[in-house]
Amino acid sequence: MRAMDLKRFVRDIADFPVPGILFRDITPLLGDGAAFAAVLAALERDARAREAEAIVGIESRGFIFGAPLAVSLGLPFVPVRKPGKLPAARMSLEYALEYGESQLDIHADALRPAQRAYIVDDLLATGGTARAAAKLVELVGGTVAGAGFAIELTGLDGRGKLSEYAVYSVLQYG
Amino acid sequence: MRAMDLKRFVRDIADFPVPGILFRDITPLLGDGAAFAAVLAALERDARAREAEAIVGIESRGFIFGAPLAVSLGLPFVPVRKPGKLPAARMSLEYALEYGESQLDIHADALRPAQRAYIVDDLLATGGTARAAAKLVELVGGTVAGAGFAIELTGLDGRGKLSEYAVYSVLQYG
Repeated sequence: MRAMDLKRFVRDIADFPVPGILFRDITPLLGDGAAFAAVLAALERDARAREAEAIVGIESRGFIFGAPLAVSLGLPFVPVRKPGKLPAARMSLEYALEYGESQLDIHADALRPAQRAYIVDDLLATGGTARAAAKLVELVGGTVAGAGFAIELTGLDGRGKLSEYAVYSVLQYG
Repeated sequence: MRAMDLKRFVRDIADFPVPGILFRDITPLLGDGAAFAAVLAALERDARAREAEAIVGIESRGFIFGAPLAVSLGLPFVPVRKPGKLPAARMSLEYALEYGESQLDIHADALRPAQRAYIVDDLLATGGTARAAAKLVELVGGTVAGAGFAIELTGLDGRGKLSEYAVYSVLQYG
């Protein structure tokens, strides 16, 4: 399925979560087996090209794409989570959002030294969340093989914030 | 891989999230491709036996098992989410937790009338969250085909709270 056709499964929702924001809703895409599989196949090609050795999914929509990707590649799945969720020894990173701050955690033993981790999320917007995930991978001794997203909002220049890394997206919106 | 062997990949963490609770940490299982695949294969067998037509994953660890299950079965994946996350018209249900209340949402158009939805989460504890997800499936017109969990804490009798439904778990802890 081509990107043009996949966009039919992304629903535009005006003024969500706040007035003035046009939200790209992926639930119709998740609801279509063939469309969901096509997005995952594209991410799988990129993760293979980047020689990924582990898939890092960012809570919580990154789990929806990252977990099936890990399964199809037969690779470890590593969740990067919001504060207070991971039970064992962990590393944390605070990062700035457009309004306020947020934090992500990773288990300290999540990756082997220099293991090539491919980071997955549903959406690349400003890149702050993905950058925090990449830095967490490095903090626990891993290497960032690349980062893959179902959707990229190109106007927000998330790639600029991830300039040290190989970035891939399946669908782009200006 | 047998259940006995799969338990080697579940790590016990004492006093998480609060003192006195023994937390069953599945991240080592997610980090082992073969163990993760074995749990998913067991859930897949049950979902097929229940003639599932859609997979409902409960945020957020239910996404980790539900999304790959939907992909391997070629079925729609329907996220049930915490409040304020789903952008389109939705149904909500408040339910009691051990301490306080919580809420889950589902998109109103998530299922076709009488579509057989199989509910997935990582853990069956008291059953309150899964019961809320089941009621949401019914509120939007679907039918609960069954519910599948990676881990069941049998001492908390979640099955009692889900007595109208077919309940399956891969690993049981007393």
